[in-house]
Amino acid sequence: MNVEYINPFLSSLVNVLATMANTTIVPGQPRIKKDEVARGDVSGLIGMVGSDIKGSFSVSFEEGLALEVMYRMLGEKPKTINADVTDMVGEITNMVTGGAKRILGDKGYEFSMATPIVVSGKAHTITHKCEGPTILMPFDSEFGKVHIEVSFDR
Amino acid sequence: MNVEYINPFLSSLVNVLATMANTTIVPGQPRIKKDEVARGDVSGLIGMVGSDIKGSFSVSFEEGLALEVMYRMLGEKPKTINADVTDMVGEITNMVTGGAKRILGDKGYEFSMATPIVVSGKAHTITHKCEGPTILMPFDSEFGKVHIEVSFDR
Repeated sequence: MNVEYINPFLSSLVNVLATMANTTIVPGQPRIKKDEVARGDVSGLIGMVGSDIKGSFSVSFEEGLALEVMYRMLGEKPKTINADVTDMVGEITNMVTGGAKRILGDKGYEFSMATPIVVSGKAHTITHKCEGPTILMPFDSEFGKVHIEVSFDR
Repeated sequence: MNVEYINPFLSSLVNVLATMANTTIVPGQPRIKKDEVARGDVSGLIGMVGSDIKGSFSVSFEEGLALEVMYRMLGEKPKTINADVTDMVGEITNMVTGGAKRILGDKGYEFSMATPIVVSGKAHTITHKCEGPTILMPFDSEFGKVHIEVSFDR
């Protein structure tokens, strides 16, 4: 997988959380995910298909951060991850992937997005099954961690 | 969502488990998923994108059934869901979606598949975020339940 693919997702997530939720996240070190397992409490996932490329993207939030983003975006702070929170995570997944798609399109990598899927459940793990490597990018914030994973088949 | 979309996934799952794992599953009643939440311990998810259609598919296994299918397909029976099991669930997701894609293609519904993603974690839930409804199809077996969900945006 071309490392050019990861940066648009990184900057898109930072941008979406800053502008929509006034929340600053600090990128850690991107790495190729091998045996490492990253856990989240609520995750948005989306498939991507182009004429000669396909892949998948996921963004996984720890519960505390998801609830704080919910509060900052919508003024509600549910006690746990409910349907409103999964809706919000689905929207963020769409926005981040849409932002990355525009940047990648300018560089000649064109793909269409499937519809997002949101998974919730304490400390679930996600594995992208793809010929190419998965790049994992962790972020930290005052309210908990978020990480993104991107995988393309070439 | 056209109900024609669900049957190819149903028959494809029944067929894959019968031929690859010698396992019989019994379809329950398909229904439109509203507030209902279906839980699984390991799930395969995949995005689908056509020129005028997009959507997502998921298949969720209870642990006992996933481990039995693993044993019957590969002769190994790990005690819990490990990387070999998530690989197998990713493969099943690809096979089921590929089978459905061929049947739907014959009916004039063409789409391309993204790469699969596998989620594991006790009793996680999945929500397809799509303009159209999500159809949920439960199945029962001697070793536990499996359910599939299909969502298309029209």
